Amino acid sequence: MLFRKRHHTKVVEIGNVSVGGTNFISVQSMTNTDTRNTVETLEQINKIHKLGGDIVRVAVPDIQAAESLPEIVDNSPIPVVADIHFDYRLALKAIEAGIAKLRINPGNIGDKKNVEIVANAAIEKNVPIRIGVNAGSLENELAQAVREKRISLGEAMCRSALAQAAILEACDFHDIIISVKASHIPDTFKAYKTLAEACDYPLHIGITEAGSANTGIIKSAVGIGTLLAEGIGDTIRVSLTGPPEEEIVVGRKILQSLDLRPYGPEIISCPTCGRTEVDVLRISEELEEKLKNDKTINKKNCKIAVMGCVVNGPGEAGSADIGFAGGKDCGIIFRNGKKICKVSAGEAVDKLIEEIRALDV
Amino acid sequence: MLFRKRHHTKVVEIGNVSVGGTNFISVQSMTNTDTRNTVETLEQINKIHKLGGDIVRVAVPDIQAAESLPEIVDNSPIPVVADIHFDYRLALKAIEAGIAKLRINPGNIGDKKNVEIVANAAIEKNVPIRIGVNAGSLENELAQAVREKRISLGEAMCRSALAQAAILEACDFHDIIISVKASHIPDTFKAYKTLAEACDYPLHIGITEAGSANTGIIKSAVGIGTLLAEGIGDTIRVSLTGPPEEEIVVGRKILQSLDLRPYGPEIISCPTCGRTEVDVLRISEELEEKLKNDKTINKKNCKIAVMGCVVNGPGEAGSADIGFAGGKDCGIIFRNGKKICKVSAGEAVDKLIEEIRALDV
Repeated sequence: MLFRKRHHTKVVEIGNVSVGGTNFISVQSMTNTDTRNTVETLEQINKIHKLGGDIVRVAVPDIQAAESLPEIVDNSPIPVVADIHFDYRLALKAIEAGIAKLRINPGNIGDKKNVEIVANAAIEKNVPIRIGVNAGSLENELAQAVREKRISLGEAMCRSALAQAAILEACDFHDIIISVKASHIPDTFKAYKTLAEACDYPLHIGITEAGSANTGIIKSAVGIGTLLAEGIGDTIRVSLTGPPEEEIVVGRKILQSLDLRPYGPEIISCPTCGRTEVDVLRISEELEEKLKNDKTINKKNCKIAVMGCVVNGPGEAGSADIGFAGGKDCGIIFRNGKKICKVSAGEAVDKLIEEIRALDV
Repeated sequence: MLFRKRHHTKVVEIGNVSVGGTNFISVQSMTNTDTRNTVETLEQINKIHKLGGDIVRVAVPDIQAAESLPEIVDNSPIPVVADIHFDYRLALKAIEAGIAKLRINPGNIGDKKNVEIVANAAIEKNVPIRIGVNAGSLENELAQAVREKRISLGEAMCRSALAQAAILEACDFHDIIISVKASHIPDTFKAYKTLAEACDYPLHIGITEAGSANTGIIKSAVGIGTLLAEGIGDTIRVSLTGPPEEEIVVGRKILQSLDLRPYGPEIISCPTCGRTEVDVLRISEELEEKLKNDKTINKKNCKIAVMGCVVNGPGEAGSADIGFAGGKDCGIIFRNGKKICKVSAGEAVDKLIEEIRALDV
């Protein structure tokens, strides 16, 4: 359930992943290995896939990187996107290698002839193109207009994207996805909102240069979350300064938090306070860890509540599929709102797992 | 800048912190020490204050806890809120102790007479009351209507809050703040949205039982972020299963990410990719650590960009107050969009600090 109706977009196929329309919102990341090192790159891609990544992007800064694409594409379990700047010949190499999508800005690969060559090659192989506008690399004219405060950054990013789309449309290329990212959330929101009203291309959303550790997670959750709540976004990328696998985990949790896509058991646990008489943190962390590693139940879409006291505990635990409401070093287990049994704090995790196993979901 | 106009609310004073109207959005947390242990509780309150917490709440489950309130109130550097359930006499004790706000649900402290006694005592001492509705502890009748799907949980929480406010209003008590929290974001959003349309009391917002570690951070950032973007929320609490100080840090970052409140230097850094030739993660983490501990500059409201390559680096670094755009084990420092000098990767952090120190903000 979205707070607002999902913005209408056309469907674009990225390998076997359909993006846009009413398709599920896909989660993607980008490798940060040296693309020329196919072993390390594929290792990272496999991690990304294992954690639930639907699509992966690799940087293709030079010809050596382009030459390793066939091996990467052939061995990747998920569609591979080639990220290319400036050099249209790298784009041709990538298309030839069988990549599932090209990320390139037609405005920065030279004259109309280069764009036409790339567009025709992409049409022939059914390869869609993402135009990725970034606040940090706007065309000079637009960047200057922003500096002189003649237009807002959001407006400038939207104009840049539409101008680049027009270049492709002029080549009769329409298999387009667009992103307009900035590190500043209000600017990014404004850019996507304007863009969503101006076109029906699927939108790839994210906050760029979000920062390291918690700062990046928080900025991405707020930025991507507010866009999704607005009904905007067909595929998401969380940008963190750190391992890309983490981006997938955060992305999944953002979608799950808004009920946009289920990803197995969801644990809700209370913040604890002066009333808590049982170790809620240990129980919920231990449960999360055990669930993650248990293949027979980690795909079950259910809600598990771990609560510390009698104020909200029984209510919250009772409205989840399975719940635990703590007392003094013990607690009550609930199933579908009904009390099942009393357990000691030490038995809680195993009993919860047993109940989840028995759940018919 | 908000995406939508801030919802109009009246102003309520919590000690020296004004909540509602056009006042800054305050950040609060709740201690999880045993309130009877005044030493540990005050230690935690001081940590909360030091990290930027504006208001702190303590649980008052029994008379011993109430008896430690005078000492806590007298020694706390920030307004103290007493969280009370069921027993109106604890509320009277707390008011007598000089607390700055009472969190109590008039619906669960007995008959009208008890409510009147508490309301009169609160009026006399200028103590506002927060009605804190929680999905886990709805009145039986409303909880049943939700279970039978006759009304939505959001609607039920809103009704509960307004009914409880009406009990106070009947005692001519109007110094009210309201919260309506659930662990599910779409329900919570719906509850606050309905409530904001129905009254002008300041709203305390948060997602309850958000979960441990990253899950809780992400749910709070998405839930609180989408409400703030909607113009809803006068004071926020991030609920994490873990240390309350962490809640303050996350809360601050949520407000900062939406430009709602400045909190000193903000670092934006790129996610790194196959193009990166300099250790962006190390530089940004080291910079963040040094900034945090440097009292002469950690209050400066500025943006610092740490970028890894030539694609977005110069643009993003150039539009921040101070920027670093990396090359091979080195980089360029920017000030207000102008290149200042070239530095080695090892010198980058110190040079950035030096530039921030010189910034006139």
